[in-house]
Amino acid sequence: MAYNLLKGKKGIIFGALNDKSIAWKVAELAYEEGAEFVLSNTPVALRMGDTNELGKKCNAEVIGADATNVEDLENLVNKTMEIFGGKIDFILHSIGMSPNVRKGLPYDALDYNNYLKTIDISALSFHKVLLVCRKLDAINEWGSVVALSYIAAQRVLYGYNDMADAKAVLESIARSFGYMYGTEKKIRINTISQSPTMTTAGSGVKGIDSLIDFTERMSPLGNADAEDCANYCITLFSDLTKKVTMQNLYHDGGFSSMGMSLRAMTQYDKSFKDCPD
Amino acid sequence: MAYNLLKGKKGIIFGALNDKSIAWKVAELAYEEGAEFVLSNTPVALRMGDTNELGKKCNAEVIGADATNVEDLENLVNKTMEIFGGKIDFILHSIGMSPNVRKGLPYDALDYNNYLKTIDISALSFHKVLLVCRKLDAINEWGSVVALSYIAAQRVLYGYNDMADAKAVLESIARSFGYMYGTEKKIRINTISQSPTMTTAGSGVKGIDSLIDFTERMSPLGNADAEDCANYCITLFSDLTKKVTMQNLYHDGGFSSMGMSLRAMTQYDKSFKDCPD
Amino acid sequence: MAYNLLKGKKGIIFGALNDKSIAWKVAELAYEEGAEFVLSNTPVALRMGDTNELGKKCNAEVIGADATNVEDLENLVNKTMEIFGGKIDFILHSIGMSPNVRKGLPYDALDYNNYLKTIDISALSFHKVLLVCRKLDAINEWGSVVALSYIAAQRVLYGYNDMADAKAVLESIARSFGYMYGTEKKIRINTISQSPTMTTAGSGVKGIDSLIDFTERMSPLGNADAEDCANYCITLFSDLTKKVTMQNLYHDGGFSSMGMSLRAMTQYDKSFKDCPD
Amino acid sequence: MAYNLLKGKKGIIFGALNDKSIAWKVAELAYEEGAEFVLSNTPVALRMGDTNELGKKCNAEVIGADATNVEDLENLVNKTMEIFGGKIDFILHSIGMSPNVRKGLPYDALDYNNYLKTIDISALSFHKVLLVCRKLDAINEWGSVVALSYIAAQRVLYGYNDMADAKAVLESIARSFGYMYGTEKKIRINTISQSPTMTTAGSGVKGIDSLIDFTERMSPLGNADAEDCANYCITLFSDLTKKVTMQNLYHDGGFSSMGMSLRAMTQYDKSFKDCPD
Repeated sequence: MAYNLLKGKKGIIFGALNDKSIAWKVAELAYEEGAEFVLSNTPVALRMGDTNELGKKCNAEVIGADATNVEDLENLVNKTMEIFGGKIDFILHSIGMSPNVRKGLPYDALDYNNYLKTIDISALSFHKVLLVCRKLDAINEWGSVVALSYIAAQRVLYGYNDMADAKAVLESIARSFGYMYGTEKKIRINTISQSPTMTTAGSGVKGIDSLIDFTERMSPLGNADAEDCANYCITLFSDLTKKVTMQNLYHDGGFSSMGMSLRAMTQYDKSFKDCPD
Repeated sequence: MAYNLLKGKKGIIFGALNDKSIAWKVAELAYEEGAEFVLSNTPVALRMGDTNELGKKCNAEVIGADATNVEDLENLVNKTMEIFGGKIDFILHSIGMSPNVRKGLPYDALDYNNYLKTIDISALSFHKVLLVCRKLDAINEWGSVVALSYIAAQRVLYGYNDMADAKAVLESIARSFGYMYGTEKKIRINTISQSPTMTTAGSGVKGIDSLIDFTERMSPLGNADAEDCANYCITLFSDLTKKVTMQNLYHDGGFSSMGMSLRAMTQYDKSFKDCPD
Repeated sequence: MAYNLLKGKKGIIFGALNDKSIAWKVAELAYEEGAEFVLSNTPVALRMGDTNELGKKCNAEVIGADATNVEDLENLVNKTMEIFGGKIDFILHSIGMSPNVRKGLPYDALDYNNYLKTIDISALSFHKVLLVCRKLDAINEWGSVVALSYIAAQRVLYGYNDMADAKAVLESIARSFGYMYGTEKKIRINTISQSPTMTTAGSGVKGIDSLIDFTERMSPLGNADAEDCANYCITLFSDLTKKVTMQNLYHDGGFSSMGMSLRAMTQYDKSFKDCPD
Repeated sequence: MAYNLLKGKKGIIFGALNDKSIAWKVAELAYEEGAEFVLSNTPVALRMGDTNELGKKCNAEVIGADATNVEDLENLVNKTMEIFGGKIDFILHSIGMSPNVRKGLPYDALDYNNYLKTIDISALSFHKVLLVCRKLDAINEWGSVVALSYIAAQRVLYGYNDMADAKAVLESIARSFGYMYGTEKKIRINTISQSPTMTTAGSGVKGIDSLIDFTERMSPLGNADAEDCANYCITLFSDLTKKVTMQNLYHDGGFSSMGMSLRAMTQYDKSFKDCPD
């Protein structure tokens, strides 16, 4: 069922690699809800992923851009404004990668060049997108920008490594830029702190299966999946949430407000049962 | 513009006193979005306010109930289910009153009978609504319950008095009941932490004018008003936010994430200018 | 090793029932650190517990008081000031009890008279202690007041029931009264959010053993025990923490900042191992 | 009055530039409390500041190190262990600098090389210190590490610029490394979120005077100054806070828990008084 919640709205969606991506689901749903948008990803991701297929499905142009490269972003935003003959209304930032995680370097023995790359790719890219949009005056008043985050920004999850620090920066950027862009142009900027999700990126996190089982049992409504997240994004891009800004919004079936559920405790207790080796 | 976001949904809206009430705006908008609902308020409020007028406008029955009285609530919920021939999908709780504030008793010299009344009216009533709904199995799976809160639950605002404690309980009830109701019946329960708003209740808070000026200058997007809040409530009642639960959601133009804005500081600085008496 | 951190300081310590009590450990340590204090508990607790024994050990008078009763508190504070010939410097509030928990009434079917008693005993008693001290001007400038809380005020732990709401109020009272008493008399008021602890009260919480095992494995430094907590209290009563106020201070070996530890996940994973029934 | 709280403890104190520095006050007080330590700062700061003078006063060696340089840190830690003939017990990290702030580049037009330098100097340096200590096994069990932070990590203060993001990373590092170091070696790692302070660094923040006036009126106990902060640090280095870890501890006279004080509102209201130009 479509509501036309985004009728007439234009946007840019970063990070739709394949049909497991949250950004992919957001694109599909935004399209159903009447939005037009440009899809963007790095050149490598465009070659390896299925973004072009999604573009066809959603009538969306696909423009390559390395989101850590300001010139690439300027090109992307300029072209997008040409395509739409004007400003845009929403942006989804779903970008994250840690070379330290990829190389299996643990947090207390990581490589600092990698660390700065993690920050640059996963957090500073968000600042760069916003700075380029601000410079080119590319977003309409009351436009809405969302980046995807994770509770590792507040609580340590072993194995998430320097991505935790990157998410902390990402959320800080949403606040800091949200203040400036909000004051000047009424743009709102928020992050969604999503349940662990079995995307291609998520699969790379150590012990993700066990974690997802645990969070599923801890969360009263179960984990939020990629489609749930897309639904939530749509509300944040719509005109119904105009005064929500600089927030980190947990979208996790209640996990963030749980200390211990009966379901998780019951499962945990089974680990102590006597069992012949 | 209506989206039919609540088409087919039934609900109960508490606390629509007059056209300044947030609950009033929620009712108007829910009606536009296709919802059917029952309006409820205390008998006194029904006599003094304009709820019946709103009922006519929105094709909604008005049923009196003292929300601190479990029998009243049972009657209300039973009648509501009769009217709709089945379960409901959403509830708005917009109820709050402090006898200590009314009588001008400051926080460090308040009356404890009044205090327990503040808690009962402004917070425990929310528990009672949920308990009655749970007992009568009155809410459909994936139903949504929202209560209105205020940042005084986290940060002290002079003059807000024991309402701060009541809001802290209210938010705790949303979490505690959200866990139980979510686990058993997939009901989601959240609070919205709204900007200070010039409702009839809000007007009673000491120094509200100055506070609203300050928060307006502190918030990048300005204060959220009652209509903004109604818009936000609609998204939380819709099917697009199914995995958001046990959250306290700031709806305040960014105020909660601000330490100091240039606008507020500039105004503050004027207070020091030399000026002949 | 004693540091004389509380040399010359006078206080009141509520809630030392027996040698498992946190308040008991605080009293022992405060005594070692040079403080003089009065011990207080309800008449029932005084009969059933070992408070008098502690009084002898610490050279402390024991004065019965129902902390929900303002007159009892006035008597206690007046007598304390007589004993010391002047004002006091610190207070420990370690009081909590839920009739609903005792009677096994779950959160979604609790008794509301019990609920208000839980609030009165476990939270409002703290307000009453502060109000009486304020009225009698019983605390010296830069005095320090601490109440014991629990993370259930922020995150749901099944079985903790209405005590979660009570702890939320308790922490709100610390802030609200902290503002007033701080502004007027430079008194600081904080809560310590302590690890689950095997006190007589703690033992009554459903599933406490499993929970303590889980939090032990989740917390990098392990759970904080009653003696650890006493050490921490001493720093908060000392002159070294004069500008810390209106805070809820987690004292939990890191638990509150954890999402998932390798140790807890490893144990959890064992619950899935195949094992013949 | 000294308590011998740090008797026998060894440490490293970073960032004591001159007698306005918080680190300077920490050094003086740690010395009084019986600690031995090495002072460290960048070569430039050593030339321009008075660290050597402090070294004489406190019987402390001064060792230059650029805290962004792992080799420098290895040299520092190795020499420190030589001096003390063994491991250390505490570290203070009081390091922060933003080239963007220095050059007056606003947050929405900053230079990204500068940005990464801000992160490297003000946050990643903390990771490097910890990593080097971990590698050289330089800290005794139950050792304590503290870094100085600021509420800009949670709430936007105009003009604080990219230092806000840096403080968010700093606090995230404290948690992430706190998990690893705590689990393996029982080391605790915390940040203190200090009132705005008139240090040499603080003076560089735009509008600091007005801000300090505002926070002074907002905070029930007034702003915490450098000496207050030193007192608090001592408690965190002592054996009395062994189970406090991965926390961001507000040390601000209550500011962080305030929404609006009567004093600040009264001053703010004066800004509206009619006054001939």
